[in-house]
Amino acid sequence: MPGVITFLTDFGQEDAYVAAMKGVTLGIAPAATLVDISHSVPAQDVLAAAYLLGIACPYFPRGTVHIAVVDPGVGTDRRALLLETPHALFLAPDNGALSYVVDAYLDEREKNVTVPPVLPPPLRLCSLPAALKAYALTHSQLFRQPVSQTFHGRDIFAPVAAHLANGLAPDAVGPRVEAVHAFVLPRPYAAGADTTVGAVMHVDHFGNLITNLSAADLPPGRVQIVIGGHRIPEVSVAYQHGGQLLAIIGSSGYLEIATKNGSAAELTGLGRWAEVTAHNA
Amino acid sequence: MPGVITFLTDFGQEDAYVAAMKGVTLGIAPAATLVDISHSVPAQDVLAAAYLLGIACPYFPRGTVHIAVVDPGVGTDRRALLLETPHALFLAPDNGALSYVVDAYLDEREKNVTVPPVLPPPLRLCSLPAALKAYALTHSQLFRQPVSQTFHGRDIFAPVAAHLANGLAPDAVGPRVEAVHAFVLPRPYAAGADTTVGAVMHVDHFGNLITNLSAADLPPGRVQIVIGGHRIPEVSVAYQHGGQLLAIIGSSGYLEIATKNGSAAELTGLGRWAEVTAHNA
Amino acid sequence: MPGVITFLTDFGQEDAYVAAMKGVTLGIAPAATLVDISHSVPAQDVLAAAYLLGIACPYFPRGTVHIAVVDPGVGTDRRALLLETPHALFLAPDNGALSYVVDAYLDEREKNVTVPPVLPPPLRLCSLPAALKAYALTHSQLFRQPVSQTFHGRDIFAPVAAHLANGLAPDAVGPRVEAVHAFVLPRPYAAGADTTVGAVMHVDHFGNLITNLSAADLPPGRVQIVIGGHRIPEVSVAYQHGGQLLAIIGSSGYLEIATKNGSAAELTGLGRWAEVTAHNA
Repeated sequence: MPGVITFLTDFGQEDAYVAAMKGVTLGIAPAATLVDISHSVPAQDVLAAAYLLGIACPYFPRGTVHIAVVDPGVGTDRRALLLETPHALFLAPDNGALSYVVDAYLDEREKNVTVPPVLPPPLRLCSLPAALKAYALTHSQLFRQPVSQTFHGRDIFAPVAAHLANGLAPDAVGPRVEAVHAFVLPRPYAAGADTTVGAVMHVDHFGNLITNLSAADLPPGRVQIVIGGHRIPEVSVAYQHGGQLLAIIGSSGYLEIATKNGSAAELTGLGRWAEVTAHNA
Repeated sequence: MPGVITFLTDFGQEDAYVAAMKGVTLGIAPAATLVDISHSVPAQDVLAAAYLLGIACPYFPRGTVHIAVVDPGVGTDRRALLLETPHALFLAPDNGALSYVVDAYLDEREKNVTVPPVLPPPLRLCSLPAALKAYALTHSQLFRQPVSQTFHGRDIFAPVAAHLANGLAPDAVGPRVEAVHAFVLPRPYAAGADTTVGAVMHVDHFGNLITNLSAADLPPGRVQIVIGGHRIPEVSVAYQHGGQLLAIIGSSGYLEIATKNGSAAELTGLGRWAEVTAHNA
Repeated sequence: MPGVITFLTDFGQEDAYVAAMKGVTLGIAPAATLVDISHSVPAQDVLAAAYLLGIACPYFPRGTVHIAVVDPGVGTDRRALLLETPHALFLAPDNGALSYVVDAYLDEREKNVTVPPVLPPPLRLCSLPAALKAYALTHSQLFRQPVSQTFHGRDIFAPVAAHLANGLAPDAVGPRVEAVHAFVLPRPYAAGADTTVGAVMHVDHFGNLITNLSAADLPPGRVQIVIGGHRIPEVSVAYQHGGQLLAIIGSSGYLEIATKNGSAAELTGLGRWAEVTAHNA
């Protein structure tokens, strides 16, 4: 039975681009269930798409086919990829859109660092962890013909996704590739025994500042959070608790800075890449 | 056969929150049909969500499961509810989001008032009309584990909705509750024999000012509408009729103030809670 | 098996109007697949809806039922139409929303013109090409009752679409009509042997200026594009190529003016109906 296909793009809501992708998909896999992740990724912000894909994909059923098309390089020689994880299939240009998906399979030891990250994160070619396989989409008989120069979401990714949802074997899309482009994601780092330094990775619709500090990254005991000169005396357990600015472990397991009934981003003037520190209080 | 599950939130379009809810739902009820009501409810505006849910739900098939998550109190001890009506099932925090759904089952006599309403509407604990049953969501084996502190839409409401769509009996979600929180909705009131006073309940995408005056609330005979100092000499039957500012019975049966090819909200500077009066002309 | 039903409106994301249409549809055709084309058409901009519908519909499976509701004339005596093409079914008010769908079936010779178009395009009554059939929606037993004055999308178009998706014959909706309203679409015209003059038809989410010049309309050989005083020396094959302002054949086969990682509309200050010329360089 064809399963779920998700769509993540920077195409916005006002054009027919997403609809064209879905139409192509349904022509090949009429019984697939189509789900939007978001189409409001800032134009050409591949890293933002990578973040959303990484956050959303764990909640989808095994075997889901995810399409992520933020593709400023469409029409150049950038590759088109299929990434196969033990849980799902991912289709995207080879431009870093799969960074968070790949990162989830990296050995934890690779993530232990003691130096500040480079921000914004640079892109590099990255060998795949053993659990993952990637393929270049080259078998053009799977594509919609003719393939346009500007819209591979519709002409390549959508039809290949539909064929995969219909049961096509991943290795039927093209040759294996051993390395893919991924952003060097900023890691929290220890600054002394009692302090961990992280960064804001995403500002959500509510203005919550979502960091890369997980609960496990926080120093043991009572923790104080400092961000942009604001000191937050503890980690709360509900948005309605805490002071004007509060810290809480959010729904993806990461510390976020929020305000009660308001926008922390607006209140602090801070955004993506802002530094956040957690101290043993 | 699993049926329809709807989603109504204040999560916006730019994050992956709605997608995470849908992914969880499809993992449990893969054949359910998922429909968005809206995700553009103003942040934390429970009453706006309640209004949209009340307006939309009559048009869905019998047995539809509706999820409404505008949830500033997530993580506190506010209850999570299932409301069962003769037509559908509703899942929401116990914060007033079900006010209009409950209101549709109140005895008409309870709605006859002669005093101006308190605005914005206060929240109160409200006994359920006889036709309705409510349950507290407490049977945590139905939830996604671990349950986060900040996202019960994904961890509680979505999986419970999926189980209900699969045929789970409503009373399997937790114990009956006899009263739920509901907003005291503003009623039109008579101000003399020939005048009814109402209020704007919603401003729609077109800038139409939608009131709480139904056709039955209007005085008999030719009716004149007054709003914010504007006098509208009659009730029209099409947006293309009438003057610059016109009054018409809208698609939910309520009087709305509109302008031909423009926004009445912009033209008048009026919004939610603005007073509107209907006079026998 | 019920197939695909698409929805295109100017209803926006913040109300429950689209959801009400979908609810009605699912009550009649519970197994239909519902797809949004867009709900962000500028309010009452019928021509913009016509454009998007024309762009999107070729990518949907044969037999898809498309609903396009941008309907400032709702409640007046404007007709409601079903248009049957060899590929799909289209439901819309008779207000020009089907202009591009009809245009795709016009004899190419009718499109050869040598005079500048009238802009914005006027609406006229247009005889149907032989491949097409149209019907007036008059068989009210197919409608949701009572039919409101202001929302035929929910009360007429949605239930009729669902019945058609269930297999209802097109001629069961009402009597044949021989002519429908369509906009006189602007054609590219020759201005001498080496120059073709076109116009911008749409500005997309990225700020790309999409014209009505197809690859076939361009003069042979190397082509230079001029728009708003900007001279673009050639037609590129990728957004990453070319200069600050570039020209490229876009995903629907039409020349578009774009900028690398930015908005051409913003850069040039140009929009819909702006003149563009293609010269043999």
